[in-house]
Amino acid sequence: MLKAEYRERGPVPQDVIEAVPFNEPELEEGQVLLEMLATPINPSDVLTLTGEYGMLPPLPAIGGNEGVAKVVKQGPNVSGLDIGQTVLLPVGSGTWATHMVANAKGLIPLPNEVDPIQLSMITINPPTAYLLLSEFVDLKEGDWVIQNAANSAVGTYLTSLAKIRGLKVVNVVRRSSLIEPMLEAGADVVLVDGDQEGESLAKRVLAATAGAEIRLGIDAVGGMATARLGEALSEGATLVNYGALSGEPCLLAPGVIIFKDITVRGFWLAKWFANASPERQQEVFGTITSLVAQGKLSAPIHATYPLSEVKEAVKVAAAGERNGKVLLIGESLHV
Amino acid sequence: MLKAEYRERGPVPQDVIEAVPFNEPELEEGQVLLEMLATPINPSDVLTLTGEYGMLPPLPAIGGNEGVAKVVKQGPNVSGLDIGQTVLLPVGSGTWATHMVANAKGLIPLPNEVDPIQLSMITINPPTAYLLLSEFVDLKEGDWVIQNAANSAVGTYLTSLAKIRGLKVVNVVRRSSLIEPMLEAGADVVLVDGDQEGESLAKRVLAATAGAEIRLGIDAVGGMATARLGEALSEGATLVNYGALSGEPCLLAPGVIIFKDITVRGFWLAKWFANASPERQQEVFGTITSLVAQGKLSAPIHATYPLSEVKEAVKVAAAGERNGKVLLIGESLHV
Repeated sequence: MLKAEYRERGPVPQDVIEAVPFNEPELEEGQVLLEMLATPINPSDVLTLTGEYGMLPPLPAIGGNEGVAKVVKQGPNVSGLDIGQTVLLPVGSGTWATHMVANAKGLIPLPNEVDPIQLSMITINPPTAYLLLSEFVDLKEGDWVIQNAANSAVGTYLTSLAKIRGLKVVNVVRRSSLIEPMLEAGADVVLVDGDQEGESLAKRVLAATAGAEIRLGIDAVGGMATARLGEALSEGATLVNYGALSGEPCLLAPGVIIFKDITVRGFWLAKWFANASPERQQEVFGTITSLVAQGKLSAPIHATYPLSEVKEAVKVAAAGERNGKVLLIGESLHV
Repeated sequence: MLKAEYRERGPVPQDVIEAVPFNEPELEEGQVLLEMLATPINPSDVLTLTGEYGMLPPLPAIGGNEGVAKVVKQGPNVSGLDIGQTVLLPVGSGTWATHMVANAKGLIPLPNEVDPIQLSMITINPPTAYLLLSEFVDLKEGDWVIQNAANSAVGTYLTSLAKIRGLKVVNVVRRSSLIEPMLEAGADVVLVDGDQEGESLAKRVLAATAGAEIRLGIDAVGGMATARLGEALSEGATLVNYGALSGEPCLLAPGVIIFKDITVRGFWLAKWFANASPERQQEVFGTITSLVAQGKLSAPIHATYPLSEVKEAVKVAAAGERNGKVLLIGESLHV
């Protein structure tokens, strides 16, 4: 039994995280012992290791914020959670471990027959994508939105959720090799960021959408990529930033902000969790869980690692240029 | 009789503007001949000459967008505007001239006894300052705001209007030589932008305001100055950009946008003119004219020039590092 612990934060995330023994404690009343099935490495996890995230747990800490597990042992007075039941952990539980102890009451039972890898990612990226499409601009069927980092997990979920709502998406990516597979997967428009053969992104967006109005831009990159999204938006549009994959601050020409009246906002899921009513949270997660269980919502997987290889897994997750999510998986899922 | 004309746009504004003869035409029905008293050179005028503004008139064009004049000759059927009456020109009239012809109906009579130099600046900068304080955040007496370029004309008007409303202002400037005179003029707090002796602007703002909440930031500079204002704002605040004196795009750390939930907006007076109801426009200008006439609202003057020296005047206005506005003034005001 192992857990991935960090005792300090530092610029190289794989240097601070380490697999250490997990010593199974005596289970107390209402507790269960869980065996982790799958737990993803999200960009926010990496930023928590480097100290760049907006909320940092006290040290030492266990990495990871979401995942699914199965119940392997029950403490006294646990009811309604059988041995073998797949469960979703509450967000922020320190999920990078082969085993952990949890209060049965905080666990949400999930169908045992659904792919646990896809289920393990439902608490962070899918609600981010869902809320980016619902909290800022009142979009109607047929409306266009534009997003960069379109091949990321959030980007992939967003494309699927947009299709379900009848919205159209301009997907901006950084490598031309991504265009064909994304179009084959049903994307409306896929464009490479920056100038291409002397044509600006804004100009190519105009051509690809036949000059359609675009009132929502979604930026996970920062730097000049933010400026380019801004230029591609319509007058009075909203540009929402939710990440900084470039590591650079957002850049915006005053001409875009002032003359085109663009509003720039930020989205942080942790803040939404803190402020949204339980009913609204239930509504969002209910929709998402059902779509994942039906296979209508999924994220591409780049690689999976056992917990003992957490350093390599974090290194790959932090490096960028991936084709999907990196996850830590439990023994029962190893191939 | 002269007018300041430009037949092309170019990177050096004083190179494209030129004083050329104004040939007095026969006055038509309802027209008057005006002798200009004073007309300012605003940053937006300079950007119109360089082609960087959001709205560019067809060429050739006369420079200038606001000013006051006196009536020197009446055409047929002009009533209610006596010879010698001081009048305000409608915004965007091409006011850089010693004389011009105008329809009497579009002119607003102003008191002859008030300083025409101060009156000549009331249509652009004071409403900008007024609206920056009223259109974005609902501010109450005692609330703090922060602005950079605080010694600019808009900055000076904003400080005066804030004082009238009982608001407090953190004034950010680029030269320490401005601190003493601004404090003597009644400013609440004046700080030099950037790090000072290793202390960030945000940290010094916190100390100067005893940690007060700041829900509105006003940026006319762009570049890193935008980022620094963002860092000094409270969670959930709004940052409004209305200019780019640095010539650089606005920079914003995603941490500020995402984790502090800062909303970034732009303000463009031309858009407000196009959208605000006549009643609202009347209300704003009525308030401002009355405050200027009472001497409660004024802008510092850097230098005045006759129209024949328009090239020098534009050069000085475009150079920055001024201590007030540059204006072109009519013969009757020459000292």
